[in-house]
Amino acid sequence: MVTRLSNFFLRTLREDPADAEVTSHRLLVRAGYIRRQAPGIFAWLPLGLRVKARLEQIIREEMAAAGAQEVHFPALMPREPYEATGRWEEYGDGIFRLQDRKDADYLLAPTHEEAFTLLVKDLYSSYKDLPLTLYQIQDKYRDEARPRAGLLRGREFTMKDAYSFDYTDAGLDASYMAQRDAYERIFQRLGLEYVIVQADAGAMGGSRSEEFLHPTAVGEDTFVRSAGGYAANVEAFETIVPAAVEYDADDAPVIFDSPDTPTIETLVAHSNAVLDGEYTASDTLKNVVLALTHLDGTREIVIVGVPGDRDIDDKRVEVAFAPAEVEPATDADFAKHPLLVKGYIGPWTEQGQLLGEESATGIRYFLDPRVVDGTSWITGANIDQKHAHSVVAGRDFGADGYIEVASVREGDPAPDGSGPVTLARGMEIGHVFQLGRKYADALGLQVLDENGKLVTVTMGSYGIGVTRILAIIAELNSDDKGLVWPASVAPFDVQVVATGKDSTAFELGAQLSADLEAAGFDVLYDDRPKVSPGVKFKDAELVGVPKIIIVGRGAADGEVELWDRRSGDREVVPASEAVARLTAQR
Amino acid sequence: MVTRLSNFFLRTLREDPADAEVTSHRLLVRAGYIRRQAPGIFAWLPLGLRVKARLEQIIREEMAAAGAQEVHFPALMPREPYEATGRWEEYGDGIFRLQDRKDADYLLAPTHEEAFTLLVKDLYSSYKDLPLTLYQIQDKYRDEARPRAGLLRGREFTMKDAYSFDYTDAGLDASYMAQRDAYERIFQRLGLEYVIVQADAGAMGGSRSEEFLHPTAVGEDTFVRSAGGYAANVEAFETIVPAAVEYDADDAPVIFDSPDTPTIETLVAHSNAVLDGEYTASDTLKNVVLALTHLDGTREIVIVGVPGDRDIDDKRVEVAFAPAEVEPATDADFAKHPLLVKGYIGPWTEQGQLLGEESATGIRYFLDPRVVDGTSWITGANIDQKHAHSVVAGRDFGADGYIEVASVREGDPAPDGSGPVTLARGMEIGHVFQLGRKYADALGLQVLDENGKLVTVTMGSYGIGVTRILAIIAELNSDDKGLVWPASVAPFDVQVVATGKDSTAFELGAQLSADLEAAGFDVLYDDRPKVSPGVKFKDAELVGVPKIIIVGRGAADGEVELWDRRSGDREVVPASEAVARLTAQR
Repeated sequence: MVTRLSNFFLRTLREDPADAEVTSHRLLVRAGYIRRQAPGIFAWLPLGLRVKARLEQIIREEMAAAGAQEVHFPALMPREPYEATGRWEEYGDGIFRLQDRKDADYLLAPTHEEAFTLLVKDLYSSYKDLPLTLYQIQDKYRDEARPRAGLLRGREFTMKDAYSFDYTDAGLDASYMAQRDAYERIFQRLGLEYVIVQADAGAMGGSRSEEFLHPTAVGEDTFVRSAGGYAANVEAFETIVPAAVEYDADDAPVIFDSPDTPTIETLVAHSNAVLDGEYTASDTLKNVVLALTHLDGTREIVIVGVPGDRDIDDKRVEVAFAPAEVEPATDADFAKHPLLVKGYIGPWTEQGQLLGEESATGIRYFLDPRVVDGTSWITGANIDQKHAHSVVAGRDFGADGYIEVASVREGDPAPDGSGPVTLARGMEIGHVFQLGRKYADALGLQVLDENGKLVTVTMGSYGIGVTRILAIIAELNSDDKGLVWPASVAPFDVQVVATGKDSTAFELGAQLSADLEAAGFDVLYDDRPKVSPGVKFKDAELVGVPKIIIVGRGAADGEVELWDRRSGDREVVPASEAVARLTAQR
Repeated sequence: MVTRLSNFFLRTLREDPADAEVTSHRLLVRAGYIRRQAPGIFAWLPLGLRVKARLEQIIREEMAAAGAQEVHFPALMPREPYEATGRWEEYGDGIFRLQDRKDADYLLAPTHEEAFTLLVKDLYSSYKDLPLTLYQIQDKYRDEARPRAGLLRGREFTMKDAYSFDYTDAGLDASYMAQRDAYERIFQRLGLEYVIVQADAGAMGGSRSEEFLHPTAVGEDTFVRSAGGYAANVEAFETIVPAAVEYDADDAPVIFDSPDTPTIETLVAHSNAVLDGEYTASDTLKNVVLALTHLDGTREIVIVGVPGDRDIDDKRVEVAFAPAEVEPATDADFAKHPLLVKGYIGPWTEQGQLLGEESATGIRYFLDPRVVDGTSWITGANIDQKHAHSVVAGRDFGADGYIEVASVREGDPAPDGSGPVTLARGMEIGHVFQLGRKYADALGLQVLDENGKLVTVTMGSYGIGVTRILAIIAELNSDDKGLVWPASVAPFDVQVVATGKDSTAFELGAQLSADLEAAGFDVLYDDRPKVSPGVKFKDAELVGVPKIIIVGRGAADGEVELWDRRSGDREVVPASEAVARLTAQR
């Protein structure tokens, strides 16, 4: 059935929506694809629903080809399984919670690891049942602090989430690669450039974790890559640890006056003025005081020591201390810890108490991996207006642990030896992830192996944000006139535009539309009477159907114009050839 | 692609689920279609998802044929639009409410009248844009007090809800009939018997309202119908009001002793013993004291007078007083109203105060329409152990209104004069409903008409419970062995079952499955090795694919068995003819 614009539910808007921060949001609203209902919550209009359905169909086909089977879980899920894995608390403010009329706790599921684990536990019991990969395409919920950028970061969004079940590590690797390969095919079919980067497996407790990032300067994620093929997001980047250095056990730190040097810059300048030597920021040890808020609400002060030429990276520090929340220590925190002299903090106190290694201060002290034993530093003396030099790691101070929170810089060596890295930005479009046995352990998912022995199942989790990808495709495929859909997900294959007051054009337009439909094209026919050609063309450009046929003055002579939305090329052809021409371009 | 049972995510269960009250719930769980997550909340397994998708496809086709266009609204909706129409409060405990991290109120939408109204208001402004019918197939939420019967009354369920927009009453009638016709086609395609009954338009404020009921003895709704074609649910049944009767204005009620006659039965026996005449229950006026709880929480006592041979019907009384909640008055209520003598209540008090017509008692008094002026009744005297006779309506008491709350009985005359009615039971499978201008008025949806004058839009609302219908189809199409799907929604068209230890059978089974697939059939191939034929046949019967092909011992001779799941007929045919035979039966 040809869709006629005269009664199609569409009203394009001339004005950008007031709250639109990004191109995709602006254009999808203006062109009548989506409509905001609340912050981060959108309704899908007929055009938008068509694109979404085509995108989902591509994902379904590739999931089926990868042997994954579709199921569908409810959005409204009871608290208990999430409680069992600790996620009910871990999500903090990030999820929507509610109670039913009997005061039972529920949430709107952000993901369904627990439910899938329990389902398989309910129904399967033998290694013979595995491997198994299940998936769903489902509306998910996150109570984002700042829902923004339209569909890019919404509170109700559609995701394809898949979960694999194996009873051996090798099986998990194979299931993982099957999903990873399927993702590559999906993005290739969508014409969406991607980089596969190592991601942090951290809080989720798994082993292998990779993200598919679409490289773009406006991306919200930073990643690094080397010419030799290494790629990782900054959270996952691992520093190459230098070898330890020999040191003189009998020597000792020297405290010196350093008035008004609360910053690394002033400290370096002062040191070069009063000490013997030429120092740079990398010779200083910067000690950053952080306040962690743990899940149980307790607040803990920790100190992190990093070379003075590096900053603390927000994302790396967030991952390092997850699920605790991290913020810089406040004046109130300093007031409670008089040992900590703001601007002059060192790894050990005036009283001779070392920080770290379960020191008497009770404050945990962490170090950047570069601060290996034997390295000598200029650092705070924990006395106002005083620093110390010749402070040697391993001799004068230790650590409660080494953590990766220092910023990554262009030129840092890739951990796999493939050379120096460069920094780039990208948008996450997919995530494949080995959960390992975390969920199966927590929920008791075991099967009998070949020897009749109970073994815990190992799982993978694989996500693609459907509505997010739709927005990214819209973002990438647009120009100053509107959207330019790739053929794979366009709402229609062809838009026929009849113009003028001559009924011949409208008759030919209707005939052409019917012929295209018969040839297997999905057709939108702009048959609106009394709408000027200019308005019709503007609407067509905004809506972004990739192929347009204009049936206007030439209709009387049996001529129409083929208009390629992307290139802008227009060509007059005999109406009788139009269908064949478009068929050939398929 | 042929689906092979050896790696299909399915595990049939031998035991009924403990909480299953109805056949559909029992079989859909046992046969691996759905799985309970919480009360009234289910996950869909691969088999169930297939049936649901086919059902939705039939609905989509008929919606498109009726000119309705698909959109999709979020489940998570902000409070404001529901507040504007009063539904935020009206729903009481019946919906799920929640707050986001900023304490803004949301609900999980039970229906979307407000959102559709606002969407059309946002985008349309002229009569030229109308008529318009939009629909969605979407997961909805109701916090049922007693979720039960599996999918028949769930808390998360899928609905097709459509909304029509017109600017004239005639337009609304046409849009309404288009949806009504589409519903008839949908139920015909599903092979689902239906009766279209008049329904109460009441609380929703509209005019025309009809329900599609599937007649079945286990239905939860009662409806009436006459041989002459009248059909209505009991809530909508209208009593034919008798003509008023002349009465003697100078006569007066006579109070008489009636010890121990708190029931109609004892009253009639006593009256026949002490009064001159032969009385039946229909000569008595039964006065029922009810307690209403209004939306604002206030409690109001009201009295309803009905002929003594009728009861108060729960559903009719619920509709009559909606949105207030109704329950019988409690002892505490009687204690607060000493004028009301339990078991001896009359329409007027000993003090000569009439109930009704804004009487001095402050208690509203309602009457059944049969209690017309001039009718004479035996009724309570509002004095313990005393009744009165010759109490005449219109002379001795009035009413604050006439309401339809008395039970409907077999033999009552249909209001359209088409003869006496019979009672039957049914399950609601669809509802078409003229909302009129209620929502457009509340939310300000107006368009300019032909004369440039603003007119308020008139709307219709049309619902089909997708998951509910799926359960009803399962319920109707089952036997003691399992499910028996109609071809229109079966999860697969054909199930091929290979049995035995001979590889010939499995090779032929695989070949036949591929041939069937090539001929356009959706095939489930039971290729499980080492599973006995008995188990395979039991599973096939439970799962309910309508056509089964058994490939067993005869395989070596090129013979297979066609098995019709519904009739149970089995027939041996040459394997080479199997595909053609099934094609012919399509």
